[in-house]
Amino acid sequence: MKTIPILSSLLAAAVAASIGTTQAATLETERYSIEVNALVDGLANPWGMAFLPDSSLLITEKGGALKHVKLDGTTRTLTGVPEVVAVGQGGLLDVAIDPDFAENQLVYLSYSEADPAGGDGNSTAVARGELGDNGLENVEVIFRGAPKYNSRQHFGSRLVFSPEGHLYITLGDRGSRMQDAQTLDNHHGKVVRIWPDGGVPEDNPFVDTDGALPEIWSYGHRNVQGAALHPDSGELWTVEHGPKGGDEINIPEAGSNYGWPVVTYGVNYDNSIITRETHKDGTEQPFYYWVPSIATSNMMFYTGDAFPQWQGDLFVGALRGQQVARLDMEDGRIMHEEALLTDRVGRIRDIEQGPDGYIYVITDDRNGSLVQIKPAE
Amino acid sequence: MKTIPILSSLLAAAVAASIGTTQAATLETERYSIEVNALVDGLANPWGMAFLPDSSLLITEKGGALKHVKLDGTTRTLTGVPEVVAVGQGGLLDVAIDPDFAENQLVYLSYSEADPAGGDGNSTAVARGELGDNGLENVEVIFRGAPKYNSRQHFGSRLVFSPEGHLYITLGDRGSRMQDAQTLDNHHGKVVRIWPDGGVPEDNPFVDTDGALPEIWSYGHRNVQGAALHPDSGELWTVEHGPKGGDEINIPEAGSNYGWPVVTYGVNYDNSIITRETHKDGTEQPFYYWVPSIATSNMMFYTGDAFPQWQGDLFVGALRGQQVARLDMEDGRIMHEEALLTDRVGRIRDIEQGPDGYIYVITDDRNGSLVQIKPAE
Ligand SMILES: [Ca+2]
Ligand SMILES: [Ca+2]
Repeated sequence: MKTIPILSSLLAAAVAASIGTTQAATLETERYSIEVNALVDGLANPWGMAFLPDSSLLITEKGGALKHVKLDGTTRTLTGVPEVVAVGQGGLLDVAIDPDFAENQLVYLSYSEADPAGGDGNSTAVARGELGDNGLENVEVIFRGAPKYNSRQHFGSRLVFSPEGHLYITLGDRGSRMQDAQTLDNHHGKVVRIWPDGGVPEDNPFVDTDGALPEIWSYGHRNVQGAALHPDSGELWTVEHGPKGGDEINIPEAGSNYGWPVVTYGVNYDNSIITRETHKDGTEQPFYYWVPSIATSNMMFYTGDAFPQWQGDLFVGALRGQQVARLDMEDGRIMHEEALLTDRVGRIRDIEQGPDGYIYVITDDRNGSLVQIKPAE
Repeated sequence: MKTIPILSSLLAAAVAASIGTTQAATLETERYSIEVNALVDGLANPWGMAFLPDSSLLITEKGGALKHVKLDGTTRTLTGVPEVVAVGQGGLLDVAIDPDFAENQLVYLSYSEADPAGGDGNSTAVARGELGDNGLENVEVIFRGAPKYNSRQHFGSRLVFSPEGHLYITLGDRGSRMQDAQTLDNHHGKVVRIWPDGGVPEDNPFVDTDGALPEIWSYGHRNVQGAALHPDSGELWTVEHGPKGGDEINIPEAGSNYGWPVVTYGVNYDNSIITRETHKDGTEQPFYYWVPSIATSNMMFYTGDAFPQWQGDLFVGALRGQQVARLDMEDGRIMHEEALLTDRVGRIRDIEQGPDGYIYVITDDRNGSLVQIKPAE
């Protein structure tokens, strides 16, 4: 395999590159020399990915296509995807497979859907279907965000299963509806927790609260585009895309308020002050935050054998920040942050650990890539 | 007061500037607009400072002078300072006042001293004396590092009193003697704890260990140039200057080994690997670390009223890094790091909170300054 530099400009220019083209670079990091390989090019703004038991992947493209991708570069488009509203930040978003996929072949998709009643609004929704030879079959919608609202912004969303089999769905505040994040009568700016069939767990925190939507797990979020289970505690961790400054890692607890937009470490994109307040009774502090924003996407705890010294560390992808932030975790605290891949691979939209213990990212680009990170030999 | 830019080059060029010249700049930080004033110029490589009850300061100069400085810029040189070995990193180092200074007028100085027996070695030592009208009187040496060793490197040292009245002295590994940091028969790479009269506390961790020096509190340090008591817990916190990469914050516990040079996050200045190992049984992990090194000097917990949103935060000065790192602390964890004063003031050698709640730093320069940081109006 040739080793040539990967540059985002080079990738962006290589629109005509054929699927399966490999471009590799060896990079030095604090603990490892790593080899970075673009296994697949030509993905149109890929958003989410999930490994199947055979080490192939499902990858969503924001425009609405679901791809089945093998690590050798073979790619095909699957059928059965719900219609999506591909505007602004909306479209086909995350993909996850059922914890019992080997038995039930269930695949879950999050996406922005038009108002089924015909209004001009939209919202995040989640559907599931059985993966057959050509695509998804017996597709059913298991979650519809409320209310429908006409916006191109802040749909979330990541899909994560709890150890007990709940499905967490992370959502966004829909931009101009940011105040909704503080009230419980809507799904904007919330993390929700449902059963995979769409049912509401009876121990959800607001099931007995008048006027509250029972799916809500936590609130006061801005745009949660990253989520992962902590490998030891089983807790949900999330990362939310802040305003200019103020990207946050949170550990959302049942019924807790993470403060947006009442308290934040961010400022608006035009530098106007949102609030000087960072603490308020009844709101939780982030576990960690970035100012200025790196524009966080998804997060991943590393548990593999390929990089023993990275075990337990938290990896966070960044869009505008064009990096993967490695947060060196020790005894529950962050000891250090290292920026990996800086300006070498592009805007990182999703990050996952493969069954081989390597790390995989997809890049947010019209000619997006699936990139593999493994130890250099 | 005129507001003109402070630039380190400007300060460095202003060798002829008279004492008391004020140069002010208004800088934006994440939480405050701050005004940065150089109250005093013309300090020759100042190293340590301590406020007196009347809000004037004692400031050491590395060459061996102890200055009495008022915030209006008045400066005089005090007498009674022990002779120092002003070579390389050695000289007159830290200064601290006794917790009962109002009653006993005792001032403590750390410095590098020549071998009293006439050998060519040197070590860190600590002396104390009573502050009279013109300087220190009745000076006595209360600590002498062992062994004496002929080196220009890594003397530590900061002086911090515990809530119970012990005196912590932070030390360095003397450079080429770095392996000494792992053995208990010497003071190299140690934090020691004594009584202010030089006596050894009977509950020190190694008082009953054969062959161990009884002053030792913790070991496995490289060059501890910063220390502070946590304002709530009363614990000693230290920051040590690492190799290229690997500056560490530690919370030294009695008898614990902080790993140097067996485990470290650093590499040598020539980029050669010290060790790929970061964890080893019997050694403690840092609380936080920097790679690359910012070249840490002293640290300070902020407890004042001038900057309410900075209360509880940890501020760490940096030499080559030419900044003050603000570590935003919440519930015992670091949520965020902000670089303050970057490349605006110069190499920061010491940082202290004043009785007025403002923050004061001194700069390591032949024409060093005392700089005041207060909220902009
Ligand atoms: Ca928040
Ligand atoms: Ca260490």
